[in-house]
Amino acid sequence: MTVRVSHHALRRTVTQIFEAAGFPPGDARRCADVLVAADLRGVESHGVSNMLKRYLGWLETGHLNPRPVVELLREKPATAAYDGDAGLGIAVLPDLMARAVEKAEQYGVGMIAVRNARHSGMLAYHSMLALEADMIGVCATSGGPRVVPTFGREARLGTNPLSVAVPTSTQRPFVFDAATSTVAFNKIANARRAGEPLGSGWCADQDGAPLMEPTSADAPIDHLMLPLGATPEGGSHKGYSLAAIVEVLASILPGGVFMGRLAGSFSGHFLAAIDPGAFTDPEEFRQEMSEFIDYLHSTPPAVGSDQVLVANDLEWETERSRRENGIPLHQEVVAWLDETCDQRNLPRLVRGPKGSGEGAVPRRAGR
Amino acid sequence: MTVRVSHHALRRTVTQIFEAAGFPPGDARRCADVLVAADLRGVESHGVSNMLKRYLGWLETGHLNPRPVVELLREKPATAAYDGDAGLGIAVLPDLMARAVEKAEQYGVGMIAVRNARHSGMLAYHSMLALEADMIGVCATSGGPRVVPTFGREARLGTNPLSVAVPTSTQRPFVFDAATSTVAFNKIANARRAGEPLGSGWCADQDGAPLMEPTSADAPIDHLMLPLGATPEGGSHKGYSLAAIVEVLASILPGGVFMGRLAGSFSGHFLAAIDPGAFTDPEEFRQEMSEFIDYLHSTPPAVGSDQVLVANDLEWETERSRRENGIPLHQEVVAWLDETCDQRNLPRLVRGPKGSGEGAVPRRAGR
Repeated sequence: MTVRVSHHALRRTVTQIFEAAGFPPGDARRCADVLVAADLRGVESHGVSNMLKRYLGWLETGHLNPRPVVELLREKPATAAYDGDAGLGIAVLPDLMARAVEKAEQYGVGMIAVRNARHSGMLAYHSMLALEADMIGVCATSGGPRVVPTFGREARLGTNPLSVAVPTSTQRPFVFDAATSTVAFNKIANARRAGEPLGSGWCADQDGAPLMEPTSADAPIDHLMLPLGATPEGGSHKGYSLAAIVEVLASILPGGVFMGRLAGSFSGHFLAAIDPGAFTDPEEFRQEMSEFIDYLHSTPPAVGSDQVLVANDLEWETERSRRENGIPLHQEVVAWLDETCDQRNLPRLVRGPKGSGEGAVPRRAGR
Repeated sequence: MTVRVSHHALRRTVTQIFEAAGFPPGDARRCADVLVAADLRGVESHGVSNMLKRYLGWLETGHLNPRPVVELLREKPATAAYDGDAGLGIAVLPDLMARAVEKAEQYGVGMIAVRNARHSGMLAYHSMLALEADMIGVCATSGGPRVVPTFGREARLGTNPLSVAVPTSTQRPFVFDAATSTVAFNKIANARRAGEPLGSGWCADQDGAPLMEPTSADAPIDHLMLPLGATPEGGSHKGYSLAAIVEVLASILPGGVFMGRLAGSFSGHFLAAIDPGAFTDPEEFRQEMSEFIDYLHSTPPAVGSDQVLVANDLEWETERSRRENGIPLHQEVVAWLDETCDQRNLPRLVRGPKGSGEGAVPRRAGR
């Protein structure tokens, strides 16, 4: 059973929960916006249902700092490195992407690496911020080891995702956001929850052998996820190396350590903004991008397939629909949100696809 | 039957052939160095045997300009776009990577995109140039359509490779260089030549169905190469999207067009240099990189495997061996080189692993 709620109402409730948890109001609003943006785009793995409870748990254990003082470690005109002071990536990264965009406006490109911050949420949120300045946005994040290197039998790298957003001449940009493993971790978690088998090439067994047939999700093999490519013959050394490159940019470049040194849910982040106008006429760039996307869409479909998609097609359509018809939340999630609000003396989530988000009142003095 | 020749002797002969073909002496030496570097690293697909004849053919048809005037199109402090004037990528890119490194020295990062240039040779040659300045080097190239998008049945993207080189505290850097398709095109060409089957996940059939069993190389399916991931379940939309991102950076960003608009062997190129010293202490960065590589090497190997490798392990060892013991060339290649030298009144290639490259005389006035 699902309940449909408006993104306005959900954003208000989540903002209030973050504020009650000690986040400054600006950060609370931003964090809520990142989570709800994921739900709007159909990326539930990084939305309210899947992440908010986890974040509150990290606050309780002290793993997460709700009021980080982000420190500039080193800076050059087009680059900067920061320490995130154990702040949540979804709170810390948007301001830093704005900084990368400022640098790109002046120098053509801006590049920022952040150590010692926590979960980044949906990476596409951050890469897409660059689109507002008609720039290409890049975001990559390294996480704790879940992925086994080619020819290995122990996890050594995170699913280390990468997102790239590129502006077009239409409203709909190109937006890629994906793990460098065969699948994102949540696909495995979801299969386990649903009692469904794991897909071909998602995991290795305890001996390191790639599981190339659908496999029961019961075995404790989620710590042996396979890199994109799955097998040596299929090019898994490429997915493995891409994960290592993300580790370099997001973990080591900002003066941090590779994630294998840390236990738990640590993250390093990498952001870049590239101004197409520094390279060519920006309108011609966006026009060519749109025609490139049309050209990909026009690929004759494989027998049995309807059409060739381009990165962001599905998420864009989902967002259009959910802005109109509301975000579906499982009733257990709504019950948990109600309970969380009750405990904190907050108004409950307004139901219905047209629920208003107005009336949200900052509960603390502004940041 | 193979003949072993020293890299010095091979470099000399190839330099002379490029000069005789009309390249300025500096460019001829650089082009020879790029081809021989590929042979030293065991990347024969991009070495003398496989590429030189093709380049000479392009010169004859006018597809390639031996004396390009590379034009700066647009510049910001940390970025630049160039038109390659139909010059060969292996001649044009090294100077532009030097420019990217200069920009990175001053601004932290340097990024350069080049339209209207030809084949880049082994991408790792260019990314590795940044290592000489203790920087991270990036190189990506877009080429003519060979790869079919997920759910499609016609090629729309090149194998669009990416290379990233990262300095370490030891002599041996991390060097990734790979196509965003399951395999590089030459693996398919080699299988056909040897009458061996194509591997699982390398190609789709004419209906767009991924061929997931070893398949005869006779069918005309080399124009339906699969993106990394091979199948939708295996994450082929990721390889497909990575190829599209390379197309954006290497083709569209420098004010060019996507490769699907062009017929033949055109290329766009993208270069970046990132200075770790702009982000953190550069020695600490290189030290952490080395320990990261040790950590990856220390992964317990899968049952039946000897060890976990890191990008550049094999190429580095091959280069050490070939510098000592010579580069093995098929005798047909040596015969072709002899014929090519005879036609141009050049001294023939000196045989033997210790053959000297000294005595190479520039045949034309300097560039």
